[in-house]
Amino acid sequence: MKNTIGLYGLGVMGANLAKNMANNRERVAVFNYTPDLTEKFVGEFSSQNVEAHYELEAFIQSLETPRKVFLMVTAGPVVDSVIRSIIPFLDKGDIIMDGGNSDFHDSNRRFHELNEQGIHFVSVGVSGGEEGALNGPALMPSGDACAYSLVAPILEKIAAKVDGKPCCTYLGPEGSGHYVKMVHNGIEYADMQLITEAYQFLRERVGLTVEEIADVFAQWNETDLKSYLIEITADILRKKDDETGKPMVDVILDKAGQKGTGKWTSKEALDIGAPSSILTEAVFARYLSAMKEERVHAENILSGPKAVDDKMDKDYWINVVKEALFMGKICAYTQGFNQYRTASEHYGWSLDLSEIALIFRGGCIIRADFLNKISNAFKQNKELTNLLLAPYFIEKTNRYQSSLRKVVMKGMESGLSLPCFSTSLTYYDGYRSSQSGANMIQAQRDYFGAHTYERNDKEGIFHTNW
Amino acid sequence: MKNTIGLYGLGVMGANLAKNMANNRERVAVFNYTPDLTEKFVGEFSSQNVEAHYELEAFIQSLETPRKVFLMVTAGPVVDSVIRSIIPFLDKGDIIMDGGNSDFHDSNRRFHELNEQGIHFVSVGVSGGEEGALNGPALMPSGDACAYSLVAPILEKIAAKVDGKPCCTYLGPEGSGHYVKMVHNGIEYADMQLITEAYQFLRERVGLTVEEIADVFAQWNETDLKSYLIEITADILRKKDDETGKPMVDVILDKAGQKGTGKWTSKEALDIGAPSSILTEAVFARYLSAMKEERVHAENILSGPKAVDDKMDKDYWINVVKEALFMGKICAYTQGFNQYRTASEHYGWSLDLSEIALIFRGGCIIRADFLNKISNAFKQNKELTNLLLAPYFIEKTNRYQSSLRKVVMKGMESGLSLPCFSTSLTYYDGYRSSQSGANMIQAQRDYFGAHTYERNDKEGIFHTNW
Repeated sequence: MKNTIGLYGLGVMGANLAKNMANNRERVAVFNYTPDLTEKFVGEFSSQNVEAHYELEAFIQSLETPRKVFLMVTAGPVVDSVIRSIIPFLDKGDIIMDGGNSDFHDSNRRFHELNEQGIHFVSVGVSGGEEGALNGPALMPSGDACAYSLVAPILEKIAAKVDGKPCCTYLGPEGSGHYVKMVHNGIEYADMQLITEAYQFLRERVGLTVEEIADVFAQWNETDLKSYLIEITADILRKKDDETGKPMVDVILDKAGQKGTGKWTSKEALDIGAPSSILTEAVFARYLSAMKEERVHAENILSGPKAVDDKMDKDYWINVVKEALFMGKICAYTQGFNQYRTASEHYGWSLDLSEIALIFRGGCIIRADFLNKISNAFKQNKELTNLLLAPYFIEKTNRYQSSLRKVVMKGMESGLSLPCFSTSLTYYDGYRSSQSGANMIQAQRDYFGAHTYERNDKEGIFHTNW
Repeated sequence: MKNTIGLYGLGVMGANLAKNMANNRERVAVFNYTPDLTEKFVGEFSSQNVEAHYELEAFIQSLETPRKVFLMVTAGPVVDSVIRSIIPFLDKGDIIMDGGNSDFHDSNRRFHELNEQGIHFVSVGVSGGEEGALNGPALMPSGDACAYSLVAPILEKIAAKVDGKPCCTYLGPEGSGHYVKMVHNGIEYADMQLITEAYQFLRERVGLTVEEIADVFAQWNETDLKSYLIEITADILRKKDDETGKPMVDVILDKAGQKGTGKWTSKEALDIGAPSSILTEAVFARYLSAMKEERVHAENILSGPKAVDDKMDKDYWINVVKEALFMGKICAYTQGFNQYRTASEHYGWSLDLSEIALIFRGGCIIRADFLNKISNAFKQNKELTNLLLAPYFIEKTNRYQSSLRKVVMKGMESGLSLPCFSTSLTYYDGYRSSQSGANMIQAQRDYFGAHTYERNDKEGIFHTNW
């Protein structure tokens, strides 16, 4: 009996996806470029649903037609060389899926290159890490809609479920699935940075202990802030270092790493004219954190305000910080979904923002109850230009914007840098300002470069002889 | 007698550069792809130093060897096709200069492609607009140092002069000249946005009239803030609209345009890990300004603080805003020069930051007295990692950081978005914080993705089983 799907690439993610498929009673053929990982896989996972292959041709020929090959290999040139190697064994109508963290520009190119050869290419953004891959990731597929319908039964089976609905929906043409995954990660960067700033403020300004902050996050996870990142932050704050007995968070060096998708999101925002300032500030905050030695040196040289020593009312400020964090999250997700809208128009993808939010509810790193609200907002109003203008969010920001203001101002007054909180507020205040000040910029551009300007009071393009 | 230089491309910038060369007694051959601009040029400018050509081969053959051809054509593919068209008429050792606003990636490629054919390629960043091109621009040349020495007499003659020194110095290999020009524009975006925010604050919060603010800027231009952009801002604020009699700035629509180099600077910063957050915020502020209709709509829907109506002491606040603006400028220029340093290491260019600052003193849009201080800082300490740590700037920030804090907090308190002022402050406070909060981010990344972390107390890479 032929296999229903072939999984190429048995690194940790690929192996777990193969197990997930087998556990869901798909007959999975597995293959890896080097035999070691295949041997390791069959050594640790035995299932009648798995067929290991060591020859590429036999691997491909073991599949039902139209053949479905799922690639889980290193993003970049490796994807192209693997595709080149399997093409000779494929027939027209066969389907290649790419589950790696590919750049959507590459996915767009591959979609069209393979399409010319009669092969379907389905981009599959995968989020959820190792654990998600095994037990149910969020999947963000795109490509030819008809080809998707052939792989949908498998993908929807292995995906995470929320309220019985799989976190996997066809999103749009070309590489739009990888685009959706990319901005998911940009949002994730911002969410993590906002949580970090809330933690810093509670610790350094409100004066809570690590244990108290763990309790605060655990309690927040019972409210409308409930999310995976809030939950694990409580866990992290409870964890003690075995060697020193200190809180783990106090022994970890504050130099943040990154793997690039946050940066990609920001570069894309710049390219298509989407003002994703909070997402970008989170990337720059990681860059600044990496300059540890310079920061340690600068601390003793550059002046700031005197430490503020007034006793802050803990309960009052815990609630203010909670509301500020929620407000920051609203602004960050607003920017991410605005970037989806802008990209959808720019590339002609017709992305359904409501469906994207539904996918994110389970399996992925940014999963949160809050995503139901986002999904509803775009479902109720298909023409919604900005999340901030949806009724639920108007009501929330109405109540919470002053808390964000209080936290940012208290941070600035006392010299604490809160880049994503601050940028959330300047974005919010900028978005709700009919008058932006850009008239001055246009005047300057026209003065020194004759770049022309528009007027308030009539149509046309004008230039002044200054 | 052969001509000393050939100018290809007679748009406004190219024509003015040709006039500048002829006025400086260079014998200039001029050529344009279509004859119309050449005819226009000879019709409006007659000089015995100019020789107009309508045939490409004759144009090139009219030049002294090694031939020096200066291209001033539209950046992008046009540059490549022009280069291809003239190559057949060149000999080894001849020199092509590109004065357009080319992407430095393209300039790097052209440098190496032409080098393989024995042709020298010199990137020349040009700043100063039409007027600068005619009377003395700032020039930022790069490429082969020996080839530069052959064109230096011409370029240094036509460049702006400050204290007798031409604003033109060999900067480094490959396309580094276009890199320097690109970041110049990124800094320019930030400087313009900071000035705009100072203007907005004085008008909307301190309550000054347009005329009063014109006087303030004119007076600031007599202080350490003296610069071209401050000077033209005073002029702009004095200008009345002929039709309505209103201040020009009040009839111009607040939707800012842009031509891309600010965006390039930010994308590059993201690529090389330079935290150029203020420069990037200025780009995003333009994007947000372009969403005029949305902003007008949102203003009536989204809440902010009640208008603050306490009478602000005008003289006190004018001085506070001046110091805040100076502080913001210091932070923005620090980010720009930090990006030069990072790029110099990344690409192996050995850029001399002190020389770059000297070039910027004249001819270009960001020309300012202040650049002498930057130049001195990098001259006195070749190893200076960050401008904020130079003695002059330590002394300034020491005095001015609290004024920036006051303006940003007053803006936030009253709902006025000041994105570049705010980001300047979070950058400053972030840079002088030995503890960044990124330990929490590293803990989260290790928790959900096993990305590992470093420790405070010993070397190594660690992972926790959370």
